[in-house]
Amino acid sequence: MEDCLFCKIAAGEIPSNKVYEDDEVLAFRDISPKAPTHILIIPKKHIARLADADEADAVLLAKIQILAKLLAEAEGIAASGYRVVTNSGEDSGQEVQHLHYHLLGGKKLGDIC
Amino acid sequence: MEDCLFCKIAAGEIPSNKVYEDDEVLAFRDISPKAPTHILIIPKKHIARLADADEADAVLLAKIQILAKLLAEAEGIAASGYRVVTNSGEDSGQEVQHLHYHLLGGKKLGDIC
Repeated sequence: MEDCLFCKIAAGEIPSNKVYEDDEVLAFRDISPKAPTHILIIPKKHIARLADADEADAVLLAKIQILAKLLAEAEGIAASGYRVVTNSGEDSGQEVQHLHYHLLGGKKLGDIC
Repeated sequence: MEDCLFCKIAAGEIPSNKVYEDDEVLAFRDISPKAPTHILIIPKKHIARLADADEADAVLLAKIQILAKLLAEAEGIAASGYRVVTNSGEDSGQEVQHLHYHLLGGKKLGDIC
């Protein structure tokens, strides 16, 4: 997607603070962190939001969940606790229209909504 | 797990307001909803939290994400927007020690943490 911020980050056209990358997914630190650990995990292919994912994306979605768990370990927040959340659409407050999962931790987190 | 609330709900020993069920997963309405739609999606097998899931659970995790998307459609909140979130461990505010994903929508949601 030509005008998608996260597609540009995935393509390396816009720099990011990467914590993990492979052919299918990228994880990088949020530039406006809401917690000591605030990592965004995205599929490299453009999916606008969870509502636009389909069964063919199931493997990718699983990979993102497992990656969140592994990154939490790498960040040292597996024991203290963390949250994994995705927003889909306007009511959720989704800001970038490219599917992303937030990994948040490193402090006592507030309510889920 | 003998003393796990969600294992008892999954086994039908404690009633719940079910919205979806198959051999592997169960979705039911939260008894203290934080939004007009507040559904919990759980694996029937006991996994305490995301931190305790492993690669062998990847298919199950994918299924839960796809189910969240489909239930959002069934609830009529796919277009207006929704959030899918899991809490793992104390800092996140996880209340029941059985892996569950919240599907939240039907109103403008607050911050993610």
